[in-house]
Amino acid sequence: MFYTIDILGTIAFAISGVLVAMSKKMDLFGILIIGFVTAIGGGTLRDLLIGETPVNWMQDITFTYVIIASAVFAMVFKNKINYLRTSLFLFDTIGIALYTLIGIEKGINANLHPVICVALGTITASFGGVIRDVLCNEIPVIFRKEIYATACVLGGVTYFLLSELPIKNDYVFVIAGVVVIVIRLLAVKFKIALPTIYSDEKT
Amino acid sequence: MFYTIDILGTIAFAISGVLVAMSKKMDLFGILIIGFVTAIGGGTLRDLLIGETPVNWMQDITFTYVIIASAVFAMVFKNKINYLRTSLFLFDTIGIALYTLIGIEKGINANLHPVICVALGTITASFGGVIRDVLCNEIPVIFRKEIYATACVLGGVTYFLLSELPIKNDYVFVIAGVVVIVIRLLAVKFKIALPTIYSDEKT
Amino acid sequence: MFYTIDILGTIAFAISGVLVAMSKKMDLFGILIIGFVTAIGGGTLRDLLIGETPVNWMQDITFTYVIIASAVFAMVFKNKINYLRTSLFLFDTIGIALYTLIGIEKGINANLHPVICVALGTITASFGGVIRDVLCNEIPVIFRKEIYATACVLGGVTYFLLSELPIKNDYVFVIAGVVVIVIRLLAVKFKIALPTIYSDEKT
Repeated sequence: MFYTIDILGTIAFAISGVLVAMSKKMDLFGILIIGFVTAIGGGTLRDLLIGETPVNWMQDITFTYVIIASAVFAMVFKNKINYLRTSLFLFDTIGIALYTLIGIEKGINANLHPVICVALGTITASFGGVIRDVLCNEIPVIFRKEIYATACVLGGVTYFLLSELPIKNDYVFVIAGVVVIVIRLLAVKFKIALPTIYSDEKT
Repeated sequence: MFYTIDILGTIAFAISGVLVAMSKKMDLFGILIIGFVTAIGGGTLRDLLIGETPVNWMQDITFTYVIIASAVFAMVFKNKINYLRTSLFLFDTIGIALYTLIGIEKGINANLHPVICVALGTITASFGGVIRDVLCNEIPVIFRKEIYATACVLGGVTYFLLSELPIKNDYVFVIAGVVVIVIRLLAVKFKIALPTIYSDEKT
Repeated sequence: MFYTIDILGTIAFAISGVLVAMSKKMDLFGILIIGFVTAIGGGTLRDLLIGETPVNWMQDITFTYVIIASAVFAMVFKNKINYLRTSLFLFDTIGIALYTLIGIEKGINANLHPVICVALGTITASFGGVIRDVLCNEIPVIFRKEIYATACVLGGVTYFLLSELPIKNDYVFVIAGVVVIVIRLLAVKFKIALPTIYSDEKT
């Protein structure tokens, strides 16, 4: 089941990259690369930081095929992709949840401090989008207005808090994932953003 | 002979970086770094992804000296470098061919899937330029209009197709390299670009 | 004592990142990440290039706490941080000196050529700022006008020259560090920049 979620997340991430690349009028190759980098960037950075090489996507060809297929699909149906926006947003959100938790578990296996594990999970979930925006010459959207990383961090904290209790690890994993998903959904639905520090009152 | 080509490619890549850096009015240090990063960026990313560290350029000081010399040369003769444009373009093109194939062979040695090997070869040949453009705050030119990566990919496919036939590996290497070079030369000569997906008919 | 300097340098680097991120109107998460990346980016790249993983900051949680505290401090006191500018500049400068020398010694331990070691030291000291500027969608300031890397390079050269003499390694370390600090202070005080290559006379 995790593998299925991983594939769905990959599809959502790849398509998000393709859409940004198309908005920049890139050529076919550029679109494909941006889709690819968005989908695998976070996991790649995670693997590099902990020294797990060759990095993940190089060892399982399925991801490459899924990304190429997603990119072709998004290019062919680019005028109809709006109808899928809700599905893609859901895939994206559960993808984020899964990637956060995979990152955390990889950090635990590498004997890292819980705070570092949460950072690693957040990096896994969010740096694909950061690299996408850098390559498209934009300030990463995640740094400006999306309450996205906050969901990852809170899900990660939940994971470690629940791990202290006598709960089976599988349940901890699922509950923490649900926390990420719910926070993200609520934040988008109610347009919750991080508090600004630029208002006059805050001086 | 491969070593000579590698050096020529390094010179061409370094100078292309220096020229972009100068167009951005960078200082001496910036120019040198951009030249350096353009020349070694692709190979460095390749080595990081497959876990071959310390990365290549750190183990052979020759490349560093060649890059510094190329950068100094390009800065001193910056008004005359136009006369060398054809030579540099040729060096660049055979450099791309060689880097693609080196990347592929490193991928094969790391037991990676042929598709991943082709990706690794393309990364080796093209990501120096991508990093150059990111550092210069531009959308990478390779994502927008240069039929460059396509030549790498087709050369890589040629390599694997020919490997199936009873042909000596050296010949396979050379033929695949020639494919990269010829596609690149023809594309530039006849201004062939990837088909656009933004025209009205394509909806 | 080195550990104290390392912490002070981390504080200065993190705050420099926070200030740039705030000037870009980033949200809390963006500010924190830019502070973090500025502080640990150079050391992370160094560790990746020589294959020392998990990278340094992942193995000592102190740095993460120091960075978070510095970022919070800078955000809370953002209107008063100007009073600290001199202290921060001093922390920054001794941080650069220390990072250069740590990078060099790590290069020596990895049996790299002295020139590569100096490059590695300079990367350690300067690439946090480069990554900061790339994420903030700016051409790295270090490539344009700061005589910063030059101080690192000259300090590194001093280190290797003195190593040839019969001087205790600790003294070599300190003297080379002082060279970095003095060059940087003099350059800023007297507004020394690298010679431009864009003037008319230089053609």
